[in-house]
Parts: sequence; structure tokens; C-alpha cells
Amino acid sequence: MKVGGDDGEILTRLAQTLNARKGADPKLSYTAKLFAAGEDTILKKIAEEAAETLLASKDGDRFHVVREVADLWFHCLVLLAYHNIGPNEVLSELARREGLSGIEEKKARES
Amino acid sequence: MKVGGDDGEILTRLAQTLNARKGADPKLSYTAKLFAAGEDTILKKIAEEAAETLLASKDGDRFHVVREVADLWFHCLVLLAYHNIGPNEVLSELARREGLSGIEEKKARES
Amino acid sequence: MKVGGDDGEILTRLAQTLNARKGADPKLSYTAKLFAAGEDTILKKIAEEAAETLLASKDGDRFHVVREVADLWFHCLVLLAYHNIGPNEVLSELARREGLSGIEEKKARES
Amino acid sequence: MKVGGDDGEILTRLAQTLNARKGADPKLSYTAKLFAAGEDTILKKIAEEAAETLLASKDGDRFHVVREVADLWFHCLVLLAYHNIGPNEVLSELARREGLSGIEEKKARES
Repeated sequence: MKVGGDDGEILTRLAQTLNARKGADPKLSYTAKLFAAGEDTILKKIAEEAAETLLASKDGDRFHVVREVADLWFHCLVLLAYHNIGPNEVLSELARREGLSGIEEKKARES
Repeated sequence: MKVGGDDGEILTRLAQTLNARKGADPKLSYTAKLFAAGEDTILKKIAEEAAETLLASKDGDRFHVVREVADLWFHCLVLLAYHNIGPNEVLSELARREGLSGIEEKKARES
Repeated sequence: MKVGGDDGEILTRLAQTLNARKGADPKLSYTAKLFAAGEDTILKKIAEEAAETLLASKDGDRFHVVREVADLWFHCLVLLAYHNIGPNEVLSELARREGLSGIEEKKARES
Repeated sequence: MKVGGDDGEILTRLAQTLNARKGADPKLSYTAKLFAAGEDTILKKIAEEAAETLLASKDGDRFHVVREVADLWFHCLVLLAYHNIGPNEVLSELARREGLSGIEEKKARES
């Protein structure tokens, strides 16, 4: 699938889909089930996917790394939706840091 | 900061900046230091930022969640650069899943 | 159940039980199933239980903390058995550090 | 260092030492510094040490696994002390499960 200059639109569209599933029947969708299960279940999935990213990287399995990072970001989007946060707020935070450079970049993250 | 239809461009630009820092002097940049420290250091940061995302969410601190998810995604971008993977590959994987829906979405992730 | 001066014997006995289950039928025991599933499955459980410990602590649920730390240590014992390491080696390492104190203790861990 | 039938005493003695450091000057001890930094700092260390255990295991470095599991258990003891929980409560929970076997063992953990 082609992903062009509109990469971010995928995150935005995914976020819209996730929002629409917030009140949906848990039986009909994995995401609706996650929302119904609640915050701790979403957070456990983030921890799990982070661990799986570590394992995939240590295995040197490039394709697996892509899938696990996608899993991790997906569950982050679910958490953001849970808190009514749009992915654009995270991207703006990243863009803000992009303006900084070198050691300043680190200071910004530590402050 | 405004983040419009070009959200994904931020990820792409960040990835370009990260790639440029791969061989840079570790003293001049936090990212160059991460690359010099190697894979395990990058992976530990991903685990750390995932944990901090959990803590921020449990504190119900919306602003903190944004910052920790940004930290988590940033270090994922560093890992992707380490493996010579562009963020567009992760976004394509997410887009591929977006085409699926409901329970199929779950099956796709489990397959 | 009473746990007296022989606390460590519980870890040793558990390790013996775990070792005995290494080649056992995965259908008969959760632990045998873990060993059959392999290293990554055991490691994911450790990451999961660590995350659940974080969540239990943030909830301030004392009883839940006890159970999650027990889960975490249990899966560490499974990992140790996987590597043919006895829990006494971990306890010896802890005892070695106990001999150190103050800031030296930190240095020992960092060295 | 010899660790005999009194393995558990090491955990108990460590817990006593940790308790004694709760109000101590953060400058004098790594542990006192952890307590002064508070719950989130202790929890981040648990997440970090769990991640380092994963990495050590994937590297197949037996000695490193021992040290990382010791680090993980040490920081669990700090968390237990933070919540005024003795390690004997965790060992009792493990002993309780030891009495269970096979699939029942799993059910006990899931209940």
C-alpha cells in the first residue's frame, strides 16, 4: 500500500475509527473490546508490545520489528483515544522538539 | 504549533534527521549518543518510556501522557533508523490494518 | 501458610518443581506449557508481570502488589530454570551486595 | 558466597536493611535516594530491570541473567518496603501456589 506525503493522515484516520468504536459492542471489534476492558488492559498491551519490540529487535528480524512497532503505536493510539487526545498533539510535541537540536534536544526532553 | 495534513511529514523529517546523526559525534547530540551506545541502550529507552507512559496515564495527567507517548515514539524512530527502517513502513502496516475491521482486525494482528 | 526461617527453601523447592516440569506434557501444567512455548514467551510474561506490578502499586492495592510481585518472581524462577540457574545464585548475588553499603552499594550495581 | 538452607533469611535481612534506610539521608545510600525519589522512581527501576533481564536472556549471557534478576528482585524488595510489605508475604503467596499443581496452578493465578 502506498503511503505518501499524507502519512499523518493515516494516524488521524485511525484515531477517528478508534473514537467511533469507543461505545461499540465489544463483541464486534478488538478495539471496542479494549475500550470496554478499560485503562489497565490498554496499558498492559502497551507494555507487552514494547517487550515484543525488544525481542523482535534482538532477533534481528526486520519485518517483525515493523509489525511490533506498528502494534505498539496502534495501542498508543488507543490510549490517546481513551484520554481524548488526538495523535496530532503527539506529532506537535515531536515537531516542537524537531526545532531543537544537538544537546538542547536532550535538555528539552529532560526538562 | 500547527500540525496539518502533513502530520506524517514530521515523522519522515524526524527520521531524516535521525539518519543524519547516525555517524555524528556523540558529544554533539543526544541521538548521536544513543546510536553510539548501541541497540540495547535504545531498547532500554523504549522500555523506560513505555513504563513512563503507564505511570502518566495512571496519574491521569493528560499533558504528561502526550509527552511520554512522544518520547516513546521518538525512541521507536531511533530504533527504526538503527534498523534502516523508515517510519512509512510502520504507517503502511497501520494503513493495511485500517482496511480491515471488527474482529478481522484482531485476527490480522494475531496471524 | 506459615513461612519461617526457611523462606528460601520455598524458592528452592519451587525451582525443583519447575525443573521437573521442563520435559512434562504441556497439557498437564501451566509451567510445562511455558517451557514448551520457549524463551520469548517466558520473557513476555516477565515484562507483563512487571507492568502489572506497576499498575497494582499505582492503584495502592497492597494485596494486589503482593500477588503481582509473586507472579513476577515466579516467572523469573521459570526463566532461571530455563537457563539452568538455581535461585540460590540470585540470592548469593543479593547477599554479596548486602555486604556493601551506602553509596558503594550503588557503585557495585553500576560497575 | 555460601547460601544454604537460610536463603530466605537473605531476603528478610535485606528487607530490614531497606526499612532502616527509609528515612536516611539520600546522599548516603542509593536505597535512601530511591525512597526519597518516591514511588514512580522505584517503579521505573522495576520496569528497567525487567527490560534488562530480557536483553541479558536474549544475549544468552548466563552471568548477566543472574545479575539482572538480582537487580529486579532488589528493586521489588524496595517497592515492598515502600508499601510496608515484608518479603515473607510474597514467599507465602508462592508457597500457597506451590501446593497447587498442573492446570489448577494456572487457574489460581488467573482467578
